[in-house]
Amino acid sequence: MSIRIGILGYGNLGRGVECAIRQNPDMELAAVFTRRNPEDVKILTRTAAVRSVSEAPEWRDRIDVLILCGGSATDLPVQTPEYVKYFNVVDSFDTHARIPEHFGNVDAAAKASGKVGIISVGWDPGMFSLNRMYANAILTEGSDYTFWGKGVSQGHSDALRRIEGVKNAKQYTIPVEEALEAVRAGKNPELSTREKHTRECFVVLEDGADAARIEQEIKTMPNYFADYDTTVHFISEEELKKNHSGIPHGGFVLRSGVTGWEKEHSHIIEYSLKLDSNPEFTSSVIVAYARAAYRLAAEGQTGCKTVFDIAPAYLSSRSGEELRKMML
Amino acid sequence: MSIRIGILGYGNLGRGVECAIRQNPDMELAAVFTRRNPEDVKILTRTAAVRSVSEAPEWRDRIDVLILCGGSATDLPVQTPEYVKYFNVVDSFDTHARIPEHFGNVDAAAKASGKVGIISVGWDPGMFSLNRMYANAILTEGSDYTFWGKGVSQGHSDALRRIEGVKNAKQYTIPVEEALEAVRAGKNPELSTREKHTRECFVVLEDGADAARIEQEIKTMPNYFADYDTTVHFISEEELKKNHSGIPHGGFVLRSGVTGWEKEHSHIIEYSLKLDSNPEFTSSVIVAYARAAYRLAAEGQTGCKTVFDIAPAYLSSRSGEELRKMML
Repeated sequence: MSIRIGILGYGNLGRGVECAIRQNPDMELAAVFTRRNPEDVKILTRTAAVRSVSEAPEWRDRIDVLILCGGSATDLPVQTPEYVKYFNVVDSFDTHARIPEHFGNVDAAAKASGKVGIISVGWDPGMFSLNRMYANAILTEGSDYTFWGKGVSQGHSDALRRIEGVKNAKQYTIPVEEALEAVRAGKNPELSTREKHTRECFVVLEDGADAARIEQEIKTMPNYFADYDTTVHFISEEELKKNHSGIPHGGFVLRSGVTGWEKEHSHIIEYSLKLDSNPEFTSSVIVAYARAAYRLAAEGQTGCKTVFDIAPAYLSSRSGEELRKMML
Repeated sequence: MSIRIGILGYGNLGRGVECAIRQNPDMELAAVFTRRNPEDVKILTRTAAVRSVSEAPEWRDRIDVLILCGGSATDLPVQTPEYVKYFNVVDSFDTHARIPEHFGNVDAAAKASGKVGIISVGWDPGMFSLNRMYANAILTEGSDYTFWGKGVSQGHSDALRRIEGVKNAKQYTIPVEEALEAVRAGKNPELSTREKHTRECFVVLEDGADAARIEQEIKTMPNYFADYDTTVHFISEEELKKNHSGIPHGGFVLRSGVTGWEKEHSHIIEYSLKLDSNPEFTSSVIVAYARAAYRLAAEGQTGCKTVFDIAPAYLSSRSGEELRKMML
């Protein structure tokens, strides 16, 4: 019997989850829950239902794992503790600083309901976190580096669009190649914000907007751009659509460490992602962890888990025997 | 109280384990067991004992985890099932094709004794296997690539030294940059053995040996060199000592896969290692898994485990709370 998945929230991430389920034959999409009018939401999977989010609890016996595809700012802090009352859930909560608090809330609710809630699944937090953790456990003395990009930062693109006179915009975060090379060479550099990443902006102006004023406003915007070397390109709406409509991303996690009686040997562990579609890759990670949620729940486990708490084999549709034979 | 570790076999790997224990303050080395005369074995840790391997079982109550540092060809197939009768054990069994058989033997013995045996720990098998498995669970449709090097292959160096007229030799396995780049570019190339790696040999001749005959013999040696583009350099013993006495290694694990409703997006997951000392890095992985063996045993688990079966958090000396706060 397949694992019955529900999706709550049908934006880029929800659609990505729907696509990922199609690539995992041991799973099926049962229903999508939306805050919009269900009749206005067209999904790709013919066999799945679209329902109002208010009906979700009624599906508790028809769904094995509910995947929460809301945002981290306001949706997930409320939704994850709420829906784990009814379902095993997976979310991609990515506000790093608030993870301990979110974990506590989900853990209490999941233990009370006897369900499993896996939080902060994706690539960062998620696969990047895992690689930081494994690398730190192996090379106990060393330095960690995380670089993001080249990719689209949604938050920075939104910040550009909030500027008066900006009609549309896309922002790319780009790791500085020299900094990456210095880390790879084992130089353990101390890197400032400016030395790690540059920011490249593609901006469509409203008719009659003042390009010079807008460029100045972008480059001096605190937190978002002021601490970076920022390049601004003014382009047409057509050009933006044609060349910048994708949502690529990626990045690098490195650990540089030493071993030996006198710490005489250096080592570099590097993990990197190059993603054509950030939401689809994130969704693919989430779907693998939905399989884990299903299995952990079947074993009788309850409470909140993160990627650190889950043995890798739980993610795979293959048996332990197959995994040992094919991949060990 | 610290985790008390025993080492069985004091070669490069055993010494690496000893060094790694020094970098993990929650562990201590209790004893090294050797097949040599214990009086002839000088170890670095003043507080640890050196004993004959025949005395090992008597230490069962004084050691929490015994790390088996023998070879995969003849030592470990016998030693791991034998010593798991008395101890929780970790080995680095690396004969990929025989892993299922070894797993079965260790599992039966470990279940009978109520101990935990973790096998095939290191970087390949080990961290490379983990990365293959995670990447396959995430990108279910795609291609896998593993490249090794640049690094010293012990087996190929040994093969060179067996040739008549060769006094000493070191062999480096080198990944072909163009092949790596094609994979990274998402081209999903089909790569022959020759297209993936080259082999570089540094050979010291015996007095009066025939260099031309030896070079020919190397380049045509079946399995070891015939299928590769092989370069042979004849150098002096001094030069070999000076420039080629290290044991560096490393490699790359890549998965190239697609997502999207029509599989329209491509992704690359890459994991790579650049290691100054192959045995010391392997040992550092083993020691992290020794911590896991200790904890799993404390929970009452028994039987054979691999890296696939162990939740990442078990490897770290940090608490779940710390890990979530610092690394998620």
